[in-house]
Amino acid sequence: MSEFVATAEFDRATALSGSAPGFAVTLDGRWDSEAGANGGFMLALATRALGRVLPFPDPVVVSGFFLRPGFPGPAEVRTELVRAGKTTAFGQASLRRDGKEVLRATAAFTDLDAAAARDAPSYAGGAPPALPPPQQCRVLPAGAIRGLTFAERIEYRMAGLPHWATGGRPSGNPAYEGWMRFADGREPDMFSLPLFADVMAPAVLEVGVRAVTTVELTAHLRARPAPGWLAFRVLTRNLADGYLEEDCELWDSAGRLVAQSRQLALVIG
Amino acid sequence: MSEFVATAEFDRATALSGSAPGFAVTLDGRWDSEAGANGGFMLALATRALGRVLPFPDPVVVSGFFLRPGFPGPAEVRTELVRAGKTTAFGQASLRRDGKEVLRATAAFTDLDAAAARDAPSYAGGAPPALPPPQQCRVLPAGAIRGLTFAERIEYRMAGLPHWATGGRPSGNPAYEGWMRFADGREPDMFSLPLFADVMAPAVLEVGVRAVTTVELTAHLRARPAPGWLAFRVLTRNLADGYLEEDCELWDSAGRLVAQSRQLALVIG
Repeated sequence: MSEFVATAEFDRATALSGSAPGFAVTLDGRWDSEAGANGGFMLALATRALGRVLPFPDPVVVSGFFLRPGFPGPAEVRTELVRAGKTTAFGQASLRRDGKEVLRATAAFTDLDAAAARDAPSYAGGAPPALPPPQQCRVLPAGAIRGLTFAERIEYRMAGLPHWATGGRPSGNPAYEGWMRFADGREPDMFSLPLFADVMAPAVLEVGVRAVTTVELTAHLRARPAPGWLAFRVLTRNLADGYLEEDCELWDSAGRLVAQSRQLALVIG
Repeated sequence: MSEFVATAEFDRATALSGSAPGFAVTLDGRWDSEAGANGGFMLALATRALGRVLPFPDPVVVSGFFLRPGFPGPAEVRTELVRAGKTTAFGQASLRRDGKEVLRATAAFTDLDAAAARDAPSYAGGAPPALPPPQQCRVLPAGAIRGLTFAERIEYRMAGLPHWATGGRPSGNPAYEGWMRFADGREPDMFSLPLFADVMAPAVLEVGVRAVTTVELTAHLRARPAPGWLAFRVLTRNLADGYLEEDCELWDSAGRLVAQSRQLALVIG
């Protein structure tokens, strides 16, 4: 692979040096919120590292606990093959910065082709967001929230702009829908879905919260996404004692649910 | 604590011997499905062990990956204090049986009294299940599903009995609501909520699935439950390629949302 030149920004930012179980990485500051690297970005990085040590191709669930901010600079991902079974393999990854652990992530991988071939019943109780085509939506300006460098790497389209992009009042309804994709044209894949699950402004901005920090994020990665825009739906049902859950669904351009994520976050402003 | 005699079944079953970081436990076979100890029970056991090593009282999120069946017999819980911050502490627990890891669990703890005192905005976008009082509901027979010993430890009340308890046809709608509590009168607490989040029959029984196994379960524990019955709501939105998510909400007798859980499960029958 030494001749390979990664051209997409996300691939450059998640490039791994060295060999298993430990990889050198660089947090490049281009996927950051005010407090260091976006949680979903770091979870995607950990998932990519686990993809190098687990014997199946598809991450189906990854859970990350965010221990400290991931500020820009050189870092390390240590991986552990926890268990390799016949249909599922489990691994753990630890992202470290200056010797201190920033993220502890655990994941299960499988082979989705083999899973699909087992021909189990299927059921779809939800539907993609009912959105106009991306071309007919409003462009969410990349600078709508200051200090979010990741928002320059991703394009957003929404049927209507949220209050924080227009200077209006919070709607009172902590939910958003829209489209997103990499700004540089890279197509989505399962390894980028943890990032996409965490790059929307917190839905609770709509009920007067100003800032939150993610304690834990679990993403179920349910299918390999088709090329094109991803439709997202984020919402919060319960904000109490400063804690909230935020759910995110991601649907691919073929109308398939490709990820369901939930995070526990803490209000910090 | 040597004089203490735990009388409730759940407390006896999750009793820890020894001292941190490793505890001896016994999987007593009384909280089992066909394939060993119920996942939520094992997650509750791991959470209790973490309560002994983390400096805050309240587990707010716990995620467990299920690596192997937890068959009855002596076992061990090894704990690790991952990080203790000012408001949140993180720990990891590994449940081992015959030297093999059965469960890898990670959790975050805080002090919910201190969190409540910070006086952040609140929002409630959901409501408890609209159920008749438990006394007016149907009793779900403990033997409704064979081989589930945990169902003898918990009482269930439902407005209508599901098809698998009556010999009827699947409803086609993978969702249930009802009441539950410990059969021996022990009151719910935060450490038993991971168990309650995983002791309902899989909602996908209603779409023709016969058996599933949990790959991963994340439970957000949002409040200390009031004494009395817990109302539960379980549902699945997406079953594809043999994988499904199942969400569970638990509401206490005061009408407060005390837990939100989601698991990724795999169809095995």
